Amino acid sequence: MDAAEFRKRGKEMVDYVADYLEKIEKRQVFPDVEPGYLRPLIADCAPQDPESFEDVFKDIEKIIMPGVTHWHSPYFFAYFPAASSFPALLADMLCGGIGCVGFSWAASPACTELETVMLDWLGKMVNLPEEFLAGKDGQGGGVIQGSASEATLIALLAARTKIIRQVQSEKPELTETEIMGRLVAYASDQAHSSVERAALIGAVKIKNVPSDDTFSVCGSALKKVLDEDKAAGLIPFFFCATLGTTPCCSFDKLLELGPICNKENIWMHIDAAYAGSAFICPEFRHLLNGVEFADSFNFNPHKWLLVNFDCSAMWVKKRSDLTGAFKLEPLYLQHHHQESGLVTDYRHWQIPLGRRFRSLKLWFVLRMYGVKGLQEHIRKHIRLSHQFEHLVLQDERFEICAEVVLGLVCFRLKGSNELNEALLKSINDAKKIHLVPCHLREKFVLRFAICSRTVESTHIKFAWQHISQLATDLLKTWEQNHHQQ
Amino acid sequence: MDAAEFRKRGKEMVDYVADYLEKIEKRQVFPDVEPGYLRPLIADCAPQDPESFEDVFKDIEKIIMPGVTHWHSPYFFAYFPAASSFPALLADMLCGGIGCVGFSWAASPACTELETVMLDWLGKMVNLPEEFLAGKDGQGGGVIQGSASEATLIALLAARTKIIRQVQSEKPELTETEIMGRLVAYASDQAHSSVERAALIGAVKIKNVPSDDTFSVCGSALKKVLDEDKAAGLIPFFFCATLGTTPCCSFDKLLELGPICNKENIWMHIDAAYAGSAFICPEFRHLLNGVEFADSFNFNPHKWLLVNFDCSAMWVKKRSDLTGAFKLEPLYLQHHHQESGLVTDYRHWQIPLGRRFRSLKLWFVLRMYGVKGLQEHIRKHIRLSHQFEHLVLQDERFEICAEVVLGLVCFRLKGSNELNEALLKSINDAKKIHLVPCHLREKFVLRFAICSRTVESTHIKFAWQHISQLATDLLKTWEQNHHQQ
Repeated sequence: MDAAEFRKRGKEMVDYVADYLEKIEKRQVFPDVEPGYLRPLIADCAPQDPESFEDVFKDIEKIIMPGVTHWHSPYFFAYFPAASSFPALLADMLCGGIGCVGFSWAASPACTELETVMLDWLGKMVNLPEEFLAGKDGQGGGVIQGSASEATLIALLAARTKIIRQVQSEKPELTETEIMGRLVAYASDQAHSSVERAALIGAVKIKNVPSDDTFSVCGSALKKVLDEDKAAGLIPFFFCATLGTTPCCSFDKLLELGPICNKENIWMHIDAAYAGSAFICPEFRHLLNGVEFADSFNFNPHKWLLVNFDCSAMWVKKRSDLTGAFKLEPLYLQHHHQESGLVTDYRHWQIPLGRRFRSLKLWFVLRMYGVKGLQEHIRKHIRLSHQFEHLVLQDERFEICAEVVLGLVCFRLKGSNELNEALLKSINDAKKIHLVPCHLREKFVLRFAICSRTVESTHIKFAWQHISQLATDLLKTWEQNHHQQ
Repeated sequence: MDAAEFRKRGKEMVDYVADYLEKIEKRQVFPDVEPGYLRPLIADCAPQDPESFEDVFKDIEKIIMPGVTHWHSPYFFAYFPAASSFPALLADMLCGGIGCVGFSWAASPACTELETVMLDWLGKMVNLPEEFLAGKDGQGGGVIQGSASEATLIALLAARTKIIRQVQSEKPELTETEIMGRLVAYASDQAHSSVERAALIGAVKIKNVPSDDTFSVCGSALKKVLDEDKAAGLIPFFFCATLGTTPCCSFDKLLELGPICNKENIWMHIDAAYAGSAFICPEFRHLLNGVEFADSFNFNPHKWLLVNFDCSAMWVKKRSDLTGAFKLEPLYLQHHHQESGLVTDYRHWQIPLGRRFRSLKLWFVLRMYGVKGLQEHIRKHIRLSHQFEHLVLQDERFEICAEVVLGLVCFRLKGSNELNEALLKSINDAKKIHLVPCHLREKFVLRFAICSRTVESTHIKFAWQHISQLATDLLKTWEQNHHQQ
């Protein structure tokens, strides 16, 4: 395919994507296919001779779309949102066209420098303390990671290197292995599975800190496990605080936890993967109070800030903590501007070496929406979650299971877990809307997350009427069966 | 921006990208900017009110392009190629439009299933042993990682988990920490820095195995370090073989190394990041002989197979080795098709949780080029590297520093490292072409990598004439200075 054909086909693809997103509401949100559906529809091996664009294009509707879960359907209320917007799609086209691999400043200066400035913009939007910004000669700064999981892992690894060096300088008789064996990381019992995974990868112990009645970790809970572990000769070194947990969007109490971590020489990382985007609204910024005690902070514009996946924003107070953990400098990656103060080589800030020009997406989205446009998007979602909450509260058969702070409503039928599992199954089998569940303590709970950019009040009303009707049907048969037993 | 405006702007962006790539030759391959150039050109913070697409669009040429290193210029001969093609750009547009996050089968079945089948296609193209393919009920299979660094890390972590379990079952008196302290990973002294980094992250020792005169690791070299380390009570568990090293594209001797690894219970991972794409040509497939001894194999279609970054293909013989290393299953990620045999949840195969629909790029590229079209691309690059090699060999002032096997030529002026550093500086300062150096043993060497999809024989001739002229100029002043001293 030459440039001339690309012009033609690219425009057809733009129209296809526009059509897809404009009419997505008409597609069934969750697919009908069974595992293994795709292989029989496709050749056994790649063709020897080129096929035409038309051949491939017509297979999109035939082979791909029947197996797609439509994350941008206004009937999609599962997981957390995956951001999508037209400015981000345009920026991604440009990113692909430029196609540079920005592992060092020299590999494409624009790619590195725009990222640094965009992370400063975004940091200011959530009113991060100045220490986290790169500015002209700051010690901190931001980086785009692929996912919150990577941000957590990088923070844990940086913390691990830092504590090992400290302990070794104080007690030179200890080997690195002996120190590693005594390190402990901590996170809420509500924290995302990626925190436990980061500890597994980093080969350090991790302990759950019990959350309170509101599913938040408070200072005394952390203090208790720290005291026990220190008494047992362990070395606490890392705490991952969560703002907006995945099960129910609860918030750890930073203002209590931060001073403890600072006093105990524990790296505090804040994972605000979903909730972080809301902090651009002044009325929700208080949820981030205490960030001044943290060493690193992360949230995902690719969840809720209209920047298509992947774009996970991470800031650190001391960039040398990250670069010091990994810096390896083979000659083919050195360049004469290195170590000049202004130069950032982002490969030292992340797990992979290569990286796309992802800051273009932030640049397009922040400018074409403006802060006000993005605030409007966040506020609309939170308004809709409260609308759903009120509908649930008006129905005595149901209960709300956690405070609705942002765009997630955790709810269930008053009754057994089996009953609620049956309700979720009937909802997802009907495929008019799509939800996923969670456990809150022993309770099986349904999560209703406001996801799509285009979801409106009418979709919420529809979703509730549908759930309510399915509950009525379910309760009827459930009571009959229950009677018969 | 609504869908109607996206249709208009998307088509403008298609034309911009087509123009950029069609006329890229006219742009200076390496930018003139100095570190810190971008910040003064840009506002201090994000705008409150939305800006128009025109405002942003005109800043691309004003702010971004002056700082871009043009990786797709036919005058770019640095690092290794970053793949780019029109079919891949089209697929990426579709990927962005669908915008699903495919961490589990249920999160978008098409995203998972197409990936499995595409990795089978690709595996067959390089004639991988059947054990590495997923097929309908294979124990192996492929996955798309973001980069070779991640593939190496994942392989090392899987190997680490496996060996710890084995040792613990044999010697239950050893703690995990004690075992970790005795583990050793190995790689060539020519291996990529990401291998050492993987060991740092995984908190295990890593040792360089000395390469021979051809910069290859042979069996006896590995055997020697293994014997020493075992005698010292260490536990060798992982060897990363490199096919196509970054400095000079040398090849470790798989047929000698593989049987040793198998006998010694060492996980053999093959990093063929760059070279792997060449194995689709039967005349280069012999370089992969010995893969049958490996546990995992990785190469980057995003380097040399016309699939835009990121798309790093990794295969394992036993998928349970990867999933067993990490499997964590919170309720919100469970779905009723789990563990059904046909279902793959790729989140267990990788570091991040989220993932884009990257297999679309493989699907578009493999079909629209066909195997023959891709072989042609590889063969053209290798022809051009030999053309450059011959030009160098005809000039007695120069020497070739390593066998030219694929698309990389390592060369230098006969003389001191300082002289060659000066030559590289004069080449990169002139900015007509762009190269990076490497060290081969004590020698400072220039790397000439065939990179761009559109590079032709005329560009090679131009590059050589230019280098040759700069060398003439340099040698003149160099000898004068040398005389004066």
